[in-house]
Amino acid sequence: MHDKVNLAEKLGLLGEHYSPGIVGYMNDYKLVVVKVKGEFVWHKHDDTDDFFLVLSGRLTIQLRDRDVVLEEGELFVVPRGVEHCPLAEEEAHVLLIEPRGTVNTGDAGGDKTVAEREI
Amino acid sequence: MHDKVNLAEKLGLLGEHYSPGIVGYMNDYKLVVVKVKGEFVWHKHDDTDDFFLVLSGRLTIQLRDRDVVLEEGELFVVPRGVEHCPLAEEEAHVLLIEPRGTVNTGDAGGDKTVAEREI
Repeated sequence: MHDKVNLAEKLGLLGEHYSPGIVGYMNDYKLVVVKVKGEFVWHKHDDTDDFFLVLSGRLTIQLRDRDVVLEEGELFVVPRGVEHCPLAEEEAHVLLIEPRGTVNTGDAGGDKTVAEREI
Repeated sequence: MHDKVNLAEKLGLLGEHYSPGIVGYMNDYKLVVVKVKGEFVWHKHDDTDDFFLVLSGRLTIQLRDRDVVLEEGELFVVPRGVEHCPLAEEEAHVLLIEPRGTVNTGDAGGDKTVAEREI
């Protein structure tokens, strides 16, 4: 974890969509890559903002009042407490940054919830 | 600051090398883009790790015992307290993430120190 990280290489290690992998840490934050396709689940994080940077493809972050459409090289920070639901028509690759321990499905839980894992 | 950020667009707003611009925030962290060319200054941050992601070009992060050479799509986190000196032979574009208030030159100060500014 104390060397450089090639994001494309790490993304190649991932399996299923919405199965994130931790590639490093910065202070008490985790640096996470994830491959997404399809719709995730509506959720929010009451204690933290949520950082998304699209590395390839297109990611729509659905908010209750609008959609934020992110192309490669675009980032968006979902404010804490704001409900959102990621959606990708085709596979997209994303860098997420969140406090360690942040649950991927936030307050929603359910079968898309996964444990933290390093890759 | 509450909309998406196109990193290339923001980089186009920057002037000189090593003159960073804040493009957003995540909790108490600032999201910063910077164009670099040439050598920066040896410094360290005693209170925080330091996140670098290369968006284009090549950035060498010189450490006292080795060089970490980052190409596009590669990231490195300099651990807190570790002396480092960024170096780029040609212009490179970089995303930095650091706690708000982090001084760009860390403990070194000097004429490369710049105030925080949003772009």
